[in-house]
Amino acid sequence: MTPQDNTLYLSRLGIDSYKEAVIYMREDCHVCRSEGLTAPARVRVTLNSRFVIATLHIIKSDMLKKGHASLSEYAWDMLGAQEKDRITVTHAKQVSSLSHVRSKIYGNSLSADNIHNIIEDIAAGRYSHIHIAAFLSACAGGRMNNREIVSLTRAMIDVGESINWGSDLIVDKHCVGGLPGNRTTPIIVSIVAAYGLTIPKTSSRAITSPAGTADTMEVLAPVELNIKAMRRVVEQENGCIVGGGSIDLSPADSLLIQVEKALDLDSEGQLVASVISKKISAGSNHILIDIPVGPTAKIRDIKTAKMLENYLTTVARELDFYVKTYVSDGTSPIGRGIGPALEARDLVAVLRGDKTAPGDLRDRAITLAGYILEFSPDVAEGQGSIIAREILENGRAWKKFQAICDAQGGMRDIPVSQHKHTIQAKHAGTVMVIDNRKIAKIAKLAGAPYEKAAGVDLHVKLGERLEKGRPLYSIHANSPGALSYTLNYLAEGNHIIQLGEE
Amino acid sequence: MTPQDNTLYLSRLGIDSYKEAVIYMREDCHVCRSEGLTAPARVRVTLNSRFVIATLHIIKSDMLKKGHASLSEYAWDMLGAQEKDRITVTHAKQVSSLSHVRSKIYGNSLSADNIHNIIEDIAAGRYSHIHIAAFLSACAGGRMNNREIVSLTRAMIDVGESINWGSDLIVDKHCVGGLPGNRTTPIIVSIVAAYGLTIPKTSSRAITSPAGTADTMEVLAPVELNIKAMRRVVEQENGCIVGGGSIDLSPADSLLIQVEKALDLDSEGQLVASVISKKISAGSNHILIDIPVGPTAKIRDIKTAKMLENYLTTVARELDFYVKTYVSDGTSPIGRGIGPALEARDLVAVLRGDKTAPGDLRDRAITLAGYILEFSPDVAEGQGSIIAREILENGRAWKKFQAICDAQGGMRDIPVSQHKHTIQAKHAGTVMVIDNRKIAKIAKLAGAPYEKAAGVDLHVKLGERLEKGRPLYSIHANSPGALSYTLNYLAEGNHIIQLGEE
Repeated sequence: MTPQDNTLYLSRLGIDSYKEAVIYMREDCHVCRSEGLTAPARVRVTLNSRFVIATLHIIKSDMLKKGHASLSEYAWDMLGAQEKDRITVTHAKQVSSLSHVRSKIYGNSLSADNIHNIIEDIAAGRYSHIHIAAFLSACAGGRMNNREIVSLTRAMIDVGESINWGSDLIVDKHCVGGLPGNRTTPIIVSIVAAYGLTIPKTSSRAITSPAGTADTMEVLAPVELNIKAMRRVVEQENGCIVGGGSIDLSPADSLLIQVEKALDLDSEGQLVASVISKKISAGSNHILIDIPVGPTAKIRDIKTAKMLENYLTTVARELDFYVKTYVSDGTSPIGRGIGPALEARDLVAVLRGDKTAPGDLRDRAITLAGYILEFSPDVAEGQGSIIAREILENGRAWKKFQAICDAQGGMRDIPVSQHKHTIQAKHAGTVMVIDNRKIAKIAKLAGAPYEKAAGVDLHVKLGERLEKGRPLYSIHANSPGALSYTLNYLAEGNHIIQLGEE
Repeated sequence: MTPQDNTLYLSRLGIDSYKEAVIYMREDCHVCRSEGLTAPARVRVTLNSRFVIATLHIIKSDMLKKGHASLSEYAWDMLGAQEKDRITVTHAKQVSSLSHVRSKIYGNSLSADNIHNIIEDIAAGRYSHIHIAAFLSACAGGRMNNREIVSLTRAMIDVGESINWGSDLIVDKHCVGGLPGNRTTPIIVSIVAAYGLTIPKTSSRAITSPAGTADTMEVLAPVELNIKAMRRVVEQENGCIVGGGSIDLSPADSLLIQVEKALDLDSEGQLVASVISKKISAGSNHILIDIPVGPTAKIRDIKTAKMLENYLTTVARELDFYVKTYVSDGTSPIGRGIGPALEARDLVAVLRGDKTAPGDLRDRAITLAGYILEFSPDVAEGQGSIIAREILENGRAWKKFQAICDAQGGMRDIPVSQHKHTIQAKHAGTVMVIDNRKIAKIAKLAGAPYEKAAGVDLHVKLGERLEKGRPLYSIHANSPGALSYTLNYLAEGNHIIQLGEE
């Protein structure tokens, strides 16, 4: 048999199945027949020296010519394919690390080598989403011990790229999340970089929230920088605020997060490995982790926060890495705006020192920046926040922020929405509850983060006493359709602010 | 906002993603934009009064016209869609039973209601493969208790169709599998139906094996009968041997099996629920379960077989259903042929009483048929196999088999392969090991079950003493390519028969 028997020509159908390798083959394809392939087989697709393991989807129409096959965009990119390239398709051998996944499902603990093999295969695109889901499910619910979490973190670092900044004092921050409007990062980076510490910050886009730091920052400057451009900005300004998407230091992590989101599953071990591996890969060695706790935040109680703190510090110690955790108040949103442009407006107001700037956002940023400054041997405990406040108030942080924006490609004007709808207090009372999750939901229904100007603008604070008719919050949207979604959601009886009767 | 804002016209691209609902939408689709949808979102697709929850794949080419979307074949069928139908696409609300799956992942046990909700949502196509994988992983490794297995079985019966035959004595058999050539079913059905018991047998096609009973039976007669046709055959002949695919009594089960195969995961609870729910749905109330045990069979040791027996009988008792288990010898294949046509040849030889018929296949079929006959109050314990042998030897079983084939649409001739390659003993010796898994692998490489005539024909038995040069087995294939696959596999050092030196 000549190898040609198993080859097909590629046609690009341009199907994005997100990060899953899929091969599309005709029902009457000679390779399907000779290999006995039927959906949903896993097949090995080889192009020159590269291969991927792809899930087979069968095409029952004439969309593909005889002798042709197509690949999902992910598989296309993994192979570096070109139109009309000739691929070889064979039955995929069972991916051997899957036996470790099954072993974990059966309740056994995994060795560092087992975990390394799993993560290596995931990063190489050899696991289907089904396999990744099984791995995550087997590890969630506290079924990973500390040793396994350390191995997972190390494996995720090993299979990706790492940046080396050539210094023992590279600082970073991370927020566990779930608090709308909590956009302290650009302020903190500006303060810390203005002081002179190196803070190469990569931030993610929103996955399930109305804005990620990268979405908000993109309102003000380009964020899609590659590693080389990022390095230039940091060398020039000590800091940057770029998107993590174009700097994929941890390919396994993005696949795991992807499937975790589909399952709406938070595995503590996975969270810890994800956060720490990304920071170490980005070359940081001192990191502050903000853990907001509140009934409608991601971490709902102090007990969970303490458990997370314990995992983070244990893993950091094993990996020779300094972590400071800060459990913060997550009972209500920070700042006023929720959505990229509205958040950008708030953080610029804080940086400029505007009188109208939200005080809680300013204070939270100063506190966190203060802790980061204390990573420096030159800053005594308790002095960090005093220095941070000074740098913010004397305008050095604002100047630094503008310089970073310029270095990233030029500062931009903040867009304003076309439609604004304001909800007013039906009666007088005190603000008893502000529901973080429902605010996030409304901001997303209004179009955030895809419509930069869309979102929610809060006009009141927890505990504030209001007169009847006082504006509670405004919804910003760019289309009547999107506005109407949010109003339908409110009409279903969803109240994001609860007022106590006087 | 008018509902039209969210509608799209359907174009059929004919993509078979197996049993997963996928919607294909253009990258610049107005619904993607207004709903903020990006791959891999889960979206609700509504057509008239039906809906499915589908995974979004984005089309980055002009394969779809503006304002159009497509669906995978599974979703297309679930909605009963027609070309140019107008669908409504919205964000899918979180499927609420997924919280039970998460609870199970976290180690909690599930109530009957929880399990019912999960199975109902799976049957309705509301779970992605990711969700199903998480459910299976959370339940495998002995993490389901007896009560949960009973609930799972009951839920799988409840969400599907059931057949009622109006009798307390409807018999059936099931083989846990993994033994090549073990094609006793058509022989057993013929004996039992000839005796006068009702045995409405549905069999599956091969999933990972070189032939399922449905594949082998299809060599001899049509098997794709619907429920009405099956009922007619059984009413006329007392029995049938039809494919389970066209009679999908348990839609959740086929989805679970699908994902389980992708994970290569055998969850005992799932296996028990799957087998029993299918039998109860098919209207049986007395069932014999054959559990072959051997080092290269599916069940490798007696301990596992005993555990399985215990689960099966417990669940059967709870569901008011009679199960008899029979642990059989699974150390080597049964019969000579492995592959649809070769197995058909063997079973016809047994039914016709040919002198050359494989004795082990005949004896196994008589034993199992005997146990089934003993379900009848008219057959005393120990008498079943005597009666079964008599019915086989006096030709009544063969007559019955031909009548069943005629009733199913007419008996067919057995095809013969174009290529036959025989492997001979390199030296004299005793057959020490016959590897079931490697035989299955070679038969599949040769083209089985898609090429009916392809497979392996064994010429020796375990323990047999051979001269040098004696034919060990022959490979049957229909193309030089397929034959070459099998020879490559052998060249890699895979020996299916081990001979002890004399």
